[in-house]
Amino acid sequence: MTAASDELVRLHAENGVATVTLNQPERRNSLSMALLEALSEVLEQIAGDGNVRVVVLAAAGKVFCAGHDLREMRKQFDSHDFQLRLFRQCSKVMQQIVNLPKPVIARVAGVATAAGCQLVASCDLAVAEKGARFATPGVNIGLFCSTPMVALSRNVSRKHAMEMLLTGELIDAARAEQIGLINRAVEPEALDETVYGMATTIAAKSGHTLKIGKEAFYKQLEMPLAHAYDYTANVMAENMQANDAREGISAFLDKRDPDWQHK
Amino acid sequence: MTAASDELVRLHAENGVATVTLNQPERRNSLSMALLEALSEVLEQIAGDGNVRVVVLAAAGKVFCAGHDLREMRKQFDSHDFQLRLFRQCSKVMQQIVNLPKPVIARVAGVATAAGCQLVASCDLAVAEKGARFATPGVNIGLFCSTPMVALSRNVSRKHAMEMLLTGELIDAARAEQIGLINRAVEPEALDETVYGMATTIAAKSGHTLKIGKEAFYKQLEMPLAHAYDYTANVMAENMQANDAREGISAFLDKRDPDWQHK
Amino acid sequence: MTAASDELVRLHAENGVATVTLNQPERRNSLSMALLEALSEVLEQIAGDGNVRVVVLAAAGKVFCAGHDLREMRKQFDSHDFQLRLFRQCSKVMQQIVNLPKPVIARVAGVATAAGCQLVASCDLAVAEKGARFATPGVNIGLFCSTPMVALSRNVSRKHAMEMLLTGELIDAARAEQIGLINRAVEPEALDETVYGMATTIAAKSGHTLKIGKEAFYKQLEMPLAHAYDYTANVMAENMQANDAREGISAFLDKRDPDWQHK
Repeated sequence: MTAASDELVRLHAENGVATVTLNQPERRNSLSMALLEALSEVLEQIAGDGNVRVVVLAAAGKVFCAGHDLREMRKQFDSHDFQLRLFRQCSKVMQQIVNLPKPVIARVAGVATAAGCQLVASCDLAVAEKGARFATPGVNIGLFCSTPMVALSRNVSRKHAMEMLLTGELIDAARAEQIGLINRAVEPEALDETVYGMATTIAAKSGHTLKIGKEAFYKQLEMPLAHAYDYTANVMAENMQANDAREGISAFLDKRDPDWQHK
Repeated sequence: MTAASDELVRLHAENGVATVTLNQPERRNSLSMALLEALSEVLEQIAGDGNVRVVVLAAAGKVFCAGHDLREMRKQFDSHDFQLRLFRQCSKVMQQIVNLPKPVIARVAGVATAAGCQLVASCDLAVAEKGARFATPGVNIGLFCSTPMVALSRNVSRKHAMEMLLTGELIDAARAEQIGLINRAVEPEALDETVYGMATTIAAKSGHTLKIGKEAFYKQLEMPLAHAYDYTANVMAENMQANDAREGISAFLDKRDPDWQHK
Repeated sequence: MTAASDELVRLHAENGVATVTLNQPERRNSLSMALLEALSEVLEQIAGDGNVRVVVLAAAGKVFCAGHDLREMRKQFDSHDFQLRLFRQCSKVMQQIVNLPKPVIARVAGVATAAGCQLVASCDLAVAEKGARFATPGVNIGLFCSTPMVALSRNVSRKHAMEMLLTGELIDAARAEQIGLINRAVEPEALDETVYGMATTIAAKSGHTLKIGKEAFYKQLEMPLAHAYDYTANVMAENMQANDAREGISAFLDKRDPDWQHK
């Protein structure tokens, strides 16, 4: 990881769990082009790191992420080219999370708005402390949250998504849990325990199996039912050829713990 | 608006909010061909009215809408042509709501069944008083609610939709809120306050931005993830070229209220 | 029904309701190739039985269904061909449930895991006793629940599905109800009353109408909105030509009970 990205995004890996921390608290972790590039770089690095099996996406400071950097955008009002590059870079990062061959858990403290809310929606799992709040408030500044809603509308039902998008209002963590935007809202002091408990549980699985499963999950979601079954029946038959499946099944039948090769 | 449609559907616009009222209470606001045509006409008129930014869909009397007009349908039992025109007209109106470049909020008092339930599901947002009830009871009369389920199944999960469709039974407003068919169930005396509170909040946004956002919302929902991001990244870059986005972002950064041009 | 399948899967039909019971309690009703073939055969038989209008899928013993038969799979570790045939057979059965022209209600007592959880998700409706539990624990044995997730992810939201798939942990019936995997969690002593109450309600409808509706439901779900409306408008106009629709509408308007011909 370069020194430059190190300033904007911190990376810490331990026991198969990599924590990626947005590290611009004084700028509310807003997704400037520089921060998006740094985040992209870190995600790419993690994708290829055989020692990492689960990722936690966290943020430094009191705001999880305030979305795009409006000052930067204002400076480039007249550059359609810049704006397009910015939204494409942002969309690339969101899809890197979805396509990362390792599960990603959002650890949300504070406010997650616009592209910050999109980050949460893009993760495979999300846990927030009860004081966390979420919004897609672009409509308030004349810039509808059109890319954030791609992730939001694939997590919550239409009327819930539309209420957030059209009113721009904040919802609290309890409501976010209720509508399916996050998995769980917990007391602030239980946030790390819950997130890293989940991460540790998942990191104990075979990394190879997690990779197969996560990839197949998002692929089959976009297929008609019959195609999805054709595809996943093949995925499972292939999965059965892997060392870790044979080890896992044998260990289960022999009532012992599996010893994963992760391949 | 013609005098004829004026009798079947009332239209009242004020402060950017147009209220469309189904006005056949003595016939339980059933969707006869005439009422569907009047509703279509009013929606078309609203679509082109630059002064309207939000629509409230309401109904006169104790029943929100009882679905199709069975007496009219019985008179035409032998005309496959009439039935097809009727269901196409109904489907056209439902899609006009979805495609209308302004948010539509259902204001539900009383019972909304069959195509009446579909109206609620087709709106972007829906608020009901606690006594409101919902059903897709076509199965009880040998005519499955096949067009209503298009809207219903895009709002609630499969098992919830199937329970309504297969049993034909009424659910109350609290249950409708729980499964995501409506945004909120409120006390009868709070219905207007809630609906028009929401409408006023949304009417204060830029009409141009609402149009961009609503259109993009339903389009991207039908795309695979990568296409959805390509599409919406372009939508946002275009949105940034609009006067209202520049005004909104500048106003936000300068800590003042935006002055929308709505274009 | 052959004597062989009779041992593995029991079939009992009464008053238009067929109960299909997985009958290998001593093997936790695990879906061996033989059980899958027997189940497929019974479903095919029911599909063509004009006296059956609703199906209840139940299981003998304390476990609803533990998923695949791992001992059988271990014996065939080296046969990619066997594994592929197995997953295809399983996928075929799940789709037979979806494509069966009669509603299927899962009656869940005990634990439903992996392909057992998939069975529940594949049914049109599901009721469980409060002690029932659900999981997709393949990840624990190195074999991701890739075919089960096809059904699971079409019933519950992404983050809920991912939590089950990535942690492999059991959820209870109350949680399953909350996330939409089942329709209702009831006291154990109310399970049959609830399931057969629902079944009886549905069996009183026109079988022809149920067939039209169920088929159209799953077809339209996979279409873009405009296509879904074109398709279902035609379905409804056709439905109106059926005897049962004319009888149902006339009976309703004449305030008498309908007398279905079921065709």
